[in-house]
Amino acid sequence: MLSFENDYNNGCCPEILQRLNATNGEQSLTYGDDEWTHSARRKIARACQCEQAQVFFLTGGTQTNMTVIDALLHGYESVITVTTGHIAVHEAGAIEFCGHKVIALPGHEGRLDAADLDAYMTAWTADETHAHRTRPAMVYVSFPTELGTIYTASQLRALREVCNRHGLLLYVDGARLGYGLAASRGDVTLPVLAQLADAFYIGGTKQGALCGEAVVFPRPEVFPSYFFTIVKQHGALLAKGRLTGLQFDTLFTDDLYLTLSRHAVAMAMRLRDLFVERGYRLAVQSPTNQQFIILPNDLVEHLDPHVQFSHIAPHDAASQVCRFVTSWSTTATQLEQLARLLRD
Amino acid sequence: MLSFENDYNNGCCPEILQRLNATNGEQSLTYGDDEWTHSARRKIARACQCEQAQVFFLTGGTQTNMTVIDALLHGYESVITVTTGHIAVHEAGAIEFCGHKVIALPGHEGRLDAADLDAYMTAWTADETHAHRTRPAMVYVSFPTELGTIYTASQLRALREVCNRHGLLLYVDGARLGYGLAASRGDVTLPVLAQLADAFYIGGTKQGALCGEAVVFPRPEVFPSYFFTIVKQHGALLAKGRLTGLQFDTLFTDDLYLTLSRHAVAMAMRLRDLFVERGYRLAVQSPTNQQFIILPNDLVEHLDPHVQFSHIAPHDAASQVCRFVTSWSTTATQLEQLARLLRD
Amino acid sequence: MLSFENDYNNGCCPEILQRLNATNGEQSLTYGDDEWTHSARRKIARACQCEQAQVFFLTGGTQTNMTVIDALLHGYESVITVTTGHIAVHEAGAIEFCGHKVIALPGHEGRLDAADLDAYMTAWTADETHAHRTRPAMVYVSFPTELGTIYTASQLRALREVCNRHGLLLYVDGARLGYGLAASRGDVTLPVLAQLADAFYIGGTKQGALCGEAVVFPRPEVFPSYFFTIVKQHGALLAKGRLTGLQFDTLFTDDLYLTLSRHAVAMAMRLRDLFVERGYRLAVQSPTNQQFIILPNDLVEHLDPHVQFSHIAPHDAASQVCRFVTSWSTTATQLEQLARLLRD
Amino acid sequence: MLSFENDYNNGCCPEILQRLNATNGEQSLTYGDDEWTHSARRKIARACQCEQAQVFFLTGGTQTNMTVIDALLHGYESVITVTTGHIAVHEAGAIEFCGHKVIALPGHEGRLDAADLDAYMTAWTADETHAHRTRPAMVYVSFPTELGTIYTASQLRALREVCNRHGLLLYVDGARLGYGLAASRGDVTLPVLAQLADAFYIGGTKQGALCGEAVVFPRPEVFPSYFFTIVKQHGALLAKGRLTGLQFDTLFTDDLYLTLSRHAVAMAMRLRDLFVERGYRLAVQSPTNQQFIILPNDLVEHLDPHVQFSHIAPHDAASQVCRFVTSWSTTATQLEQLARLLRD
Repeated sequence: MLSFENDYNNGCCPEILQRLNATNGEQSLTYGDDEWTHSARRKIARACQCEQAQVFFLTGGTQTNMTVIDALLHGYESVITVTTGHIAVHEAGAIEFCGHKVIALPGHEGRLDAADLDAYMTAWTADETHAHRTRPAMVYVSFPTELGTIYTASQLRALREVCNRHGLLLYVDGARLGYGLAASRGDVTLPVLAQLADAFYIGGTKQGALCGEAVVFPRPEVFPSYFFTIVKQHGALLAKGRLTGLQFDTLFTDDLYLTLSRHAVAMAMRLRDLFVERGYRLAVQSPTNQQFIILPNDLVEHLDPHVQFSHIAPHDAASQVCRFVTSWSTTATQLEQLARLLRD
Repeated sequence: MLSFENDYNNGCCPEILQRLNATNGEQSLTYGDDEWTHSARRKIARACQCEQAQVFFLTGGTQTNMTVIDALLHGYESVITVTTGHIAVHEAGAIEFCGHKVIALPGHEGRLDAADLDAYMTAWTADETHAHRTRPAMVYVSFPTELGTIYTASQLRALREVCNRHGLLLYVDGARLGYGLAASRGDVTLPVLAQLADAFYIGGTKQGALCGEAVVFPRPEVFPSYFFTIVKQHGALLAKGRLTGLQFDTLFTDDLYLTLSRHAVAMAMRLRDLFVERGYRLAVQSPTNQQFIILPNDLVEHLDPHVQFSHIAPHDAASQVCRFVTSWSTTATQLEQLARLLRD
Repeated sequence: MLSFENDYNNGCCPEILQRLNATNGEQSLTYGDDEWTHSARRKIARACQCEQAQVFFLTGGTQTNMTVIDALLHGYESVITVTTGHIAVHEAGAIEFCGHKVIALPGHEGRLDAADLDAYMTAWTADETHAHRTRPAMVYVSFPTELGTIYTASQLRALREVCNRHGLLLYVDGARLGYGLAASRGDVTLPVLAQLADAFYIGGTKQGALCGEAVVFPRPEVFPSYFFTIVKQHGALLAKGRLTGLQFDTLFTDDLYLTLSRHAVAMAMRLRDLFVERGYRLAVQSPTNQQFIILPNDLVEHLDPHVQFSHIAPHDAASQVCRFVTSWSTTATQLEQLARLLRD
Repeated sequence: MLSFENDYNNGCCPEILQRLNATNGEQSLTYGDDEWTHSARRKIARACQCEQAQVFFLTGGTQTNMTVIDALLHGYESVITVTTGHIAVHEAGAIEFCGHKVIALPGHEGRLDAADLDAYMTAWTADETHAHRTRPAMVYVSFPTELGTIYTASQLRALREVCNRHGLLLYVDGARLGYGLAASRGDVTLPVLAQLADAFYIGGTKQGALCGEAVVFPRPEVFPSYFFTIVKQHGALLAKGRLTGLQFDTLFTDDLYLTLSRHAVAMAMRLRDLFVERGYRLAVQSPTNQQFIILPNDLVEHLDPHVQFSHIAPHDAASQVCRFVTSWSTTATQLEQLARLLRD
């Protein structure tokens, strides 16, 4: 069935598959000590223009968030995000499982506003009872956000300044980083992230890999001691580390990561236009591969048997917000099939 | 210095002190197996008109909340409260330390609204991604609330019904329970709580004891197995259990608990009038021993050197919300001293 | 370089690679709801002769242990293993990270003895202070053990009886299950495990998959509620669940899992003979793919530049225990290369 | 009934009771900011000859251990003790609840041997897989031990040197510290502990207080940041901090702590002699207030209805190890009653 349900409803990109075939017969060291993983680390550090960056590969997004956040925070510290932040909603309490409070501030189309953050921290500091509260020690932002929107470099810089002012780490969840970078058109880049963030991850699962996320710690002084052991303790260490290493080595060869991402974004713009041309409204203006569209309930009923997409929430009595997602694997043919369904 | 800072800025009530003296020379069993603790359990069960109730004594409020909530929830389950709920703000992340997410809904003068709760749970159930979210499994309400307000029995009953509809436990934080019961004037009583709540605690620390909170589990089928071991594991088991047992045995003799509470509430009403008569506004209408009053900044500056109270938050550029608290130990003389300060 | 370092120093078996190629272009549902995962579940349940078994796929061994153990135990409960048990040593404290004590009893060539277990539990029960201790609630055994040995069905049955007597769950870590089954020659089988264990997992990572372990809960009444959410909360839910599902679907087609395992065990017996024929002693008699051999230090120095294997521990001043591991991918040529090195 | 069951089967020492009476009417600051707590801190720092020491008051022993250990360790770090260590046995898994593995080495009459520790750490360091294991980061010793024995200063110094060699913190559980100091006769003193340990606590509950333990961090650089918040998060912050502060202020006035302890130890020596003179053997040579005596089962049966003591474990078919404990409150009359029972 036609599916725009998400960006991981597929296999891996052909380039990765080809290399899995080409290397399968070789023996290797394990736990990330193989040659492909080392190569991927170097390529990612270079792409970030940050040779001293520490790069680790984990398997999935929630796992990466819980491991990194728990590694960087003390037990009594909390992390700030927006109410729609992935860690605040869709990670089954994994951050709290590690002992940390998630503080959710109101978002602006999914984005955390620097002024809101500053106001929250200023009030926290002024509160004469704050020793009875968790210490907010990290800001978590998703790039792109869960609503498909992105930050400008200047918005990220503003967040960084507030973080500096209040002693907060800045962590960027890049589950769909490529799509955000593609949409950002050179404003936010990997080197910009490496300059501004204390840690971020480059998503693989939703970006053409079978699995895998690449965590980047740009600053040696913020890199957690014994991170390998921490990863193991969180159940996140892959024995055959080559599986993630090789995939990222491929994605960071010949700019493949961005090429795939640009394709997905281009497809998303065309998908969006299909709806907009027919007069449907967008719930949010998203420049990336997730499109949130307000559809009449009867259209949803008409589409449901033929195409997969997410039913996010009711909009009003007669309509609802639906999510359509493209990916590196979306084809023009699929968009035509969707167009045909809309035409009927 | 004159202090209305809180209701635990004092020693214990004279009746408790007298019994500490009278019993000090006796040897006893430990860990809550002494005669006074057994007696206190029986008296509390009787006061709740719930002979089968299990009663345990812990030392403080945060400790009690974390132990009871963690004992009653599975690892993947979360607890719902209002944004001002003590567990959401002032427990240093103790609930998250135990692994559970705290979901904070907007409050109404500190109260959780049954309709809000129902709407939240209905949306949670309808959300097709809810298996990726924690399962809300408990409602936490404070009685009285952190803003000094109370629920009517009918409001609590409405919450109970929503809990039943959605498979939620109802837990009542009674750190200041007596003050709430006194203000409730027979509407909410211990037997009412024992009927409606799955667990609640009767505060001692803020109600005339040196320390101690009495947890009540009215229903055998909701009483956690191995609760003694759980209490120990949470660092909450007192070796000389007689210390808390004896205090509650005293508080539940001759209706002392309510008598002390009624006194505090009466003092609070007189304190409130001192301010209202002088034209100051209340930030919230509280019938209990916590009064939140909007005071001009210059008055605050005038009072600060002479009387202790809490500076909650700025109200506007020229005024702030201050909290004045009475207790079982507040005297008419103290109120007169405060009146004199206001007159100056 | 020639490597007998472990059984995951390779890619995947050709049959899996072939199917990854064949299915890569298809779209699918996610989080384990794809057709291959459903098929793998059915095939595994059938292989266990236990149609009602619940089967879940996770990514790695430590992750599986921590998720299953935490899902099955209450917070105050502990798990019993032997001192060499994987969870007691090589999981970086992942079980304790989830809050549970690991109790390590002395092993017998890596095996837990039913009589030792019974004695421990009898003493625990008789201890008048046991409410101050964790409640042992689960027995963890590895099959094969970390020393390569296996249990007979009758030894497992004896453990099960002790578990029944003392209210313990029985959980089997089958990271290398196939190698154990192959060595067991029909004594311990999947149906036997499904009858005796409350939960066990069928290892994939060390048995020819790129990653993946299949957890089996044979009894509906022991299957944890909300297990999907628990898996997510532990960071163990793979978005592209097809990756693990497809691999196990392949491994459980045409008896591939056992065929690969039998090959590895046959290779291990030949490897063992290479050493024994030359007069080297075995540290333990292992019928499976891990061989622990006592080698003179100068031989180790001679081998090290040419072949990878593990240096487990000093044996005496002049020799040490080394581990050589075969796998489904070990070839006769590799054994010949090793033989040549030994000959030199 | 006559009781030698433990050293907390009583009220508080008369000096504490007297001061509770004398100060009860006063208002005070809370959470340890009252004058008595400040005074107690100063007195304890002075008694330790360590003016820069940070001193905090908690309520009980398990609570103190879990809070201090969790505050000083990173998530992936573990603590080493002996198999009889309180944290390894009788704290219901509280350390594991905080996420840390407890590593138990064989003890020598309850003591950890410096050579054993060194050997363990040397092997850990040499183990090529140790990144997959927790990092041992702290040594926990009880002074006196759970078997009543004590360390000499030179034994503690040897442990400290091993700790220095391997990057371990040294933490001393002093639940019965006074009795150990009294038995040590000037060899181990508070200043010695302040020089050798990174943290230790001075027990109150078992030493004449109603509750309370005083944690001492002698070195500013090892004092955990935000310790107040950590204490709150662990449910260990007493609202009326004066309760513990005042008690320790009393115990550290006029050398009361040691005076009471010396009395208990003297009583213990007389109690021991009662048994030894009658030919009963000691299970362990203890110079402190806990005496472990091997008694024939029929004598135990004869004593049980008249005197409380602990039945530790069977010794052989006809006898068992029993524990008799004296305290600051033990009287000559009680010993005579016991003597009479033995005579019968």
